[in-house]
Amino acid sequence: MDFLDEPFPDVGTYEDFHTIDWLREKSRDTDRHRKITSKSKESIWEFIKSLLDAWSGWVVMLLIGLLAGTLAGVIDLAVDWMTDLKEGVCLSAFWYSHEQCCWTSNETTFEDRDKCPLWQKWSELLVSQSEGASAYILNYLMYILWALLFAFLAVSLVRVFAPYACGSGIPEIKTILSGFIIRGYLGKWTLLIKTVTLVLVVSSGLSLGKEGPLVHVACCCGNFFSSLFSKYSKNEGKRREVLSAAAAAGVSVAFGAPIGGVLFSLEEVSYYFPLKTLWRSFFAALVAAFTLRSINPFGNSRLVLFYVEYHTPWRRKTTRLGKYPVLEVIVVTAITAIIAYPNPYTRQSTSELISELFNDCGALESSQLCDYINDPNMTRPVDDIPDRPAGVGVYTAMWQLALALIFKIVITIFTFGMKIPSGLFIPSMAVGAMAGRMVGIGVEQLAYHHHDWIIFRNWCRPGADCVTPGLYAMVGAAACLGGVTRMTVSLVVIMFELTGGLEYIVPLMAAAVTSKWVADAFGKEGIYEAHIHLNGYPFLDVKDEFTHRTLATDVMRPRRGEPPLSVLTQDSMTVEDVETLIKETDYNGFPVVVSRDSERLIGFAQRRELILAIKNARQRQEGIVSNSIMYFTEEPPELPANSPHPLKLRRILNLSPFTVTDHTPMETVVDIFRKLGLRQCLVTRSGRLLGIITKKDVLRHMAQMANQDPESIMFN
Amino acid sequence: MDFLDEPFPDVGTYEDFHTIDWLREKSRDTDRHRKITSKSKESIWEFIKSLLDAWSGWVVMLLIGLLAGTLAGVIDLAVDWMTDLKEGVCLSAFWYSHEQCCWTSNETTFEDRDKCPLWQKWSELLVSQSEGASAYILNYLMYILWALLFAFLAVSLVRVFAPYACGSGIPEIKTILSGFIIRGYLGKWTLLIKTVTLVLVVSSGLSLGKEGPLVHVACCCGNFFSSLFSKYSKNEGKRREVLSAAAAAGVSVAFGAPIGGVLFSLEEVSYYFPLKTLWRSFFAALVAAFTLRSINPFGNSRLVLFYVEYHTPWRRKTTRLGKYPVLEVIVVTAITAIIAYPNPYTRQSTSELISELFNDCGALESSQLCDYINDPNMTRPVDDIPDRPAGVGVYTAMWQLALALIFKIVITIFTFGMKIPSGLFIPSMAVGAMAGRMVGIGVEQLAYHHHDWIIFRNWCRPGADCVTPGLYAMVGAAACLGGVTRMTVSLVVIMFELTGGLEYIVPLMAAAVTSKWVADAFGKEGIYEAHIHLNGYPFLDVKDEFTHRTLATDVMRPRRGEPPLSVLTQDSMTVEDVETLIKETDYNGFPVVVSRDSERLIGFAQRRELILAIKNARQRQEGIVSNSIMYFTEEPPELPANSPHPLKLRRILNLSPFTVTDHTPMETVVDIFRKLGLRQCLVTRSGRLLGIITKKDVLRHMAQMANQDPESIMFN
Repeated sequence: MDFLDEPFPDVGTYEDFHTIDWLREKSRDTDRHRKITSKSKESIWEFIKSLLDAWSGWVVMLLIGLLAGTLAGVIDLAVDWMTDLKEGVCLSAFWYSHEQCCWTSNETTFEDRDKCPLWQKWSELLVSQSEGASAYILNYLMYILWALLFAFLAVSLVRVFAPYACGSGIPEIKTILSGFIIRGYLGKWTLLIKTVTLVLVVSSGLSLGKEGPLVHVACCCGNFFSSLFSKYSKNEGKRREVLSAAAAAGVSVAFGAPIGGVLFSLEEVSYYFPLKTLWRSFFAALVAAFTLRSINPFGNSRLVLFYVEYHTPWRRKTTRLGKYPVLEVIVVTAITAIIAYPNPYTRQSTSELISELFNDCGALESSQLCDYINDPNMTRPVDDIPDRPAGVGVYTAMWQLALALIFKIVITIFTFGMKIPSGLFIPSMAVGAMAGRMVGIGVEQLAYHHHDWIIFRNWCRPGADCVTPGLYAMVGAAACLGGVTRMTVSLVVIMFELTGGLEYIVPLMAAAVTSKWVADAFGKEGIYEAHIHLNGYPFLDVKDEFTHRTLATDVMRPRRGEPPLSVLTQDSMTVEDVETLIKETDYNGFPVVVSRDSERLIGFAQRRELILAIKNARQRQEGIVSNSIMYFTEEPPELPANSPHPLKLRRILNLSPFTVTDHTPMETVVDIFRKLGLRQCLVTRSGRLLGIITKKDVLRHMAQMANQDPESIMFN
Repeated sequence: MDFLDEPFPDVGTYEDFHTIDWLREKSRDTDRHRKITSKSKESIWEFIKSLLDAWSGWVVMLLIGLLAGTLAGVIDLAVDWMTDLKEGVCLSAFWYSHEQCCWTSNETTFEDRDKCPLWQKWSELLVSQSEGASAYILNYLMYILWALLFAFLAVSLVRVFAPYACGSGIPEIKTILSGFIIRGYLGKWTLLIKTVTLVLVVSSGLSLGKEGPLVHVACCCGNFFSSLFSKYSKNEGKRREVLSAAAAAGVSVAFGAPIGGVLFSLEEVSYYFPLKTLWRSFFAALVAAFTLRSINPFGNSRLVLFYVEYHTPWRRKTTRLGKYPVLEVIVVTAITAIIAYPNPYTRQSTSELISELFNDCGALESSQLCDYINDPNMTRPVDDIPDRPAGVGVYTAMWQLALALIFKIVITIFTFGMKIPSGLFIPSMAVGAMAGRMVGIGVEQLAYHHHDWIIFRNWCRPGADCVTPGLYAMVGAAACLGGVTRMTVSLVVIMFELTGGLEYIVPLMAAAVTSKWVADAFGKEGIYEAHIHLNGYPFLDVKDEFTHRTLATDVMRPRRGEPPLSVLTQDSMTVEDVETLIKETDYNGFPVVVSRDSERLIGFAQRRELILAIKNARQRQEGIVSNSIMYFTEEPPELPANSPHPLKLRRILNLSPFTVTDHTPMETVVDIFRKLGLRQCLVTRSGRLLGIITKKDVLRHMAQMANQDPESIMFN
């Protein structure tokens, strides 16, 4: 009789594209924990096992940090090498990047080191010419060919082996963390293919960055290591705690910004983020940053800027080219390579560009952007150069920057949504930095030529260094990124971890707040939320406020006129009745009531577990036939003498289903769904069961109300 | 009949030392918001009013930032002056601090500037002697006298005008933010007196800091400004959103660390912290930091370290001296002043001490701590000084530091819990920094004398600068503070905002994680939680995990054998019945059921509102007498012809009380209380009302379970 008190296979798992039940996962973990604690008093071995179990969380974090840091380091090195491969090759060892190749060169100045004899451009190697039109054209062609090759390889790998490896992955990770199941999205194949193709697409010079995808890669690592520990592999709720921390480790290595990573995970990605996860994320981010730094000692983790996210994918969903993903990638890559090569600001890698735009013109700077006219009479201290009039180089640079800006904006829109790993952080920052630097130079020249204008008079003496164009670029980058993602605190922290510019915290914060205000005036959704909505994932955003006056009774099913709610009774339905009910409906579960007349609720049974339990009982339990009575009570019901053996199903009955009254404001219901991570909630009046509200009903209702009255959520 | 459908005075307010109902506050705010939105379509004036209302949140933040920044700036300046007053006075203007007095002095070296003629020590002024034993004794006495005067003034002011101004206030603010009402704790008198006494106690040289109390001051500002806007003054839930942001502004000005402030508010103080509050906190912190910087241009907001918290108050609760708060303060101040004066490391202000300990020995450093023996043959670059053997000064400093360390630890324990504003951040950091610096110097000397030891061999060549004692001090300070407060992320951010040491993020993070692990092994509670428990506030900590196997039925009242639950029926009790029930019980509210037989729940009525409603009806509604029937239904019950006028109370009935079934695990119940901020929850079985669980029941049960099985919450 108590056969079903033993767990049977597959109970407690979820189907693909379904939502998990947070409360149930949590109480299952508590059970597991209690079992281990009580066992641990039995023997020393069990005690050690319980200690290991308690520390397994930290061990998983350590492993994630190590693997994510290693992968990021390897990706960095590979991208360096392959990006340079588009321009030339190192004769001493073909796997050296330009910088590594010339590292041991004897030339001491920067310019000469750049031209060390071991490093040969393709034109030098193939036709022994380093200057002239034919060399330029050959180099141009080789650049395009390599770019196409890399892009083709990447899109083919994604297509064949791991379709989930495309995009940045952050919107999906957000959805998964909120409790949705997407099988394989964080699998081993995705991990492998995304890592390899990420190197390829970044090296190909497409207008995308590697930082968003790195978060996905780190989450794949997190998923992999959670599968090694039963504490995490068997509990979808606990697994999500690990994934939140893994996301932090991902941002940590993407930017070399461990604190920013933790905050990003908290502000942008995570759904359920208890303080314990905060501490673990912190640890994982720390280990990852440390590992990366140990692997890649040449990389200056503070001035190299990374990280990228989705951009405007909704524009792309309807293009015709979208149906031919490989062709699309080839075309966009070809256009990118052809247009990018002639302009120095688009040819160089985007992170180099950003770094150049952020830097101030010190005395040693050889960039075009620093071609100012110097006063010959002036003594020049290294650090404090007064404002000077712009030279020819600056004006050329301004033109090139303006063209690059337009190109970047347009090509970035087309690049995102392609079926390759891609992110938006770097392109957004580049766009912002270019615009910011141009404004900065403009203001600097205005201030130089018009010291007497009222806006300059009070703080800008002639001969002083009062305008720093690099700071304008930094603020511009932060503002642009903030507008796209609506990050605030994590944005500022990432920016100053990236640049080391702790003193610019006030302008950065002002930029973040302003760009959030302006962007929110156009629409409340950041890029991730927009993408989630576009894909129709059941994501209940904590940021949306629900302020309508509807009640639970307006949302629950059955509506007026609909057939009554499908319920099970506690001790009067036969196995066949239930099987018919399951066949005829597709609900995820059924409320169990005392009887159809009284409608007093006693619990809730999940569809999946009902099916499994009946299947198991029919196969393995004797005497269970189609007209066996199923009962959910402790004691079997009193049955006529010749009736078949009844089937006890109390084990699968959830005795504490969530209920609200029909008068509960939907605002409260939405709050409960969000905060407790419910899948469904039952509606009662005066103790009688009236109906059910599922997460999908809530989302549908919220969308309806938002469409009815779009203003009401603004300015709130 | 519909008289009570109009709101009556005081409805929706709470009594002192009671808990608010978050869900209700939230839905009241939604109602208000909806009313404004619908009105805004009526006229342009209403539309402008609705815009003003929408932006009032940001306006309040701006005002809080401005006032908190101003107060912090004024406190800084006043403390500077009064601290110096203990040693001497400025002849040109007595309100100048030592530094300001000598600012315009013609002496150019640091040493001479320190002794500028306008600044006179008390011995110089009173007996015209600057050296010798009698001058020393006179200065010593004046130092003690001033300290006693300041401390006496402070404790008297607190005692007479604002008893709530004592302590740091953070534990109480945490409790208030979690939904508790403490009238006057954030009032105007507290604001005024705390600001003034804070200056006095910090100047008196007691072992405490001003940073914790500054958070309290900022929250008082927040409370003051919320009272100006009806959106916040009339809604306890919304008011707490403002207070969370004000706490962030407080930390922001205390440390000059705006980001750290936001994170501190998030990690340590706040209870309900939606993303909207995150953004607003960010804005308030920004404005506050900016205001402070504008007011106090001399203060270097990055190297001056602040912030202080409670320490070990549980040890103090039983001392006899505790009954005589004024005497206690005088005695502790006298002991502090007498012992502190002779030792240079205790005489100087604690933030100066920390600053000195953090600093590395550059070539210009004249501190005793930097008295190393220099190699005369060595050329000395300014920044890169190799490890050197310690000189006499360093050994003296080590002894003095060791004594200062012991003194600080002991006196800090006695200082906290005194009836004056006090904080723990600075003393904790000082203790950690002293220990860290001593370890650092020890390791440095070991490394210098034993280059061949295996632990030094790989990374420390002779003649290199491989050990930086200042970094050890910084890490020590972070570790000590982390151990006391259990902060992690906010700690690291505050530390690097304070020191600008972004490159030390990895050692700081490692220190924070380690100190958290070690401290947690001794007990999970940080200083704030310990204080909250000590005071018995009903605070449901989000950090405690509840993992016991109890069910709602084990916790609910009535227990077995107790008299049945006091309930109201929906339409059969008279006014007198209810008045008797109210008189005989002290419950905060009563469930309303259909009838005593069916026990089917229809709602919940608050005690306070019942009393107010009956009082109002008896005064103002005709025909209401003691045997009038009270009804909670829409329609009046059918009554005999000659019965008195019935009283309709549907308006005060909460139609959506929270219910759980008796089988719900307490773990889930705790989670619901925490996440939804409930005051009470009703327990049902199969639709029948069984009992009630209040927040206090939950807290009592958690405490019981923790005492039964203290191990089980460890290592979780």
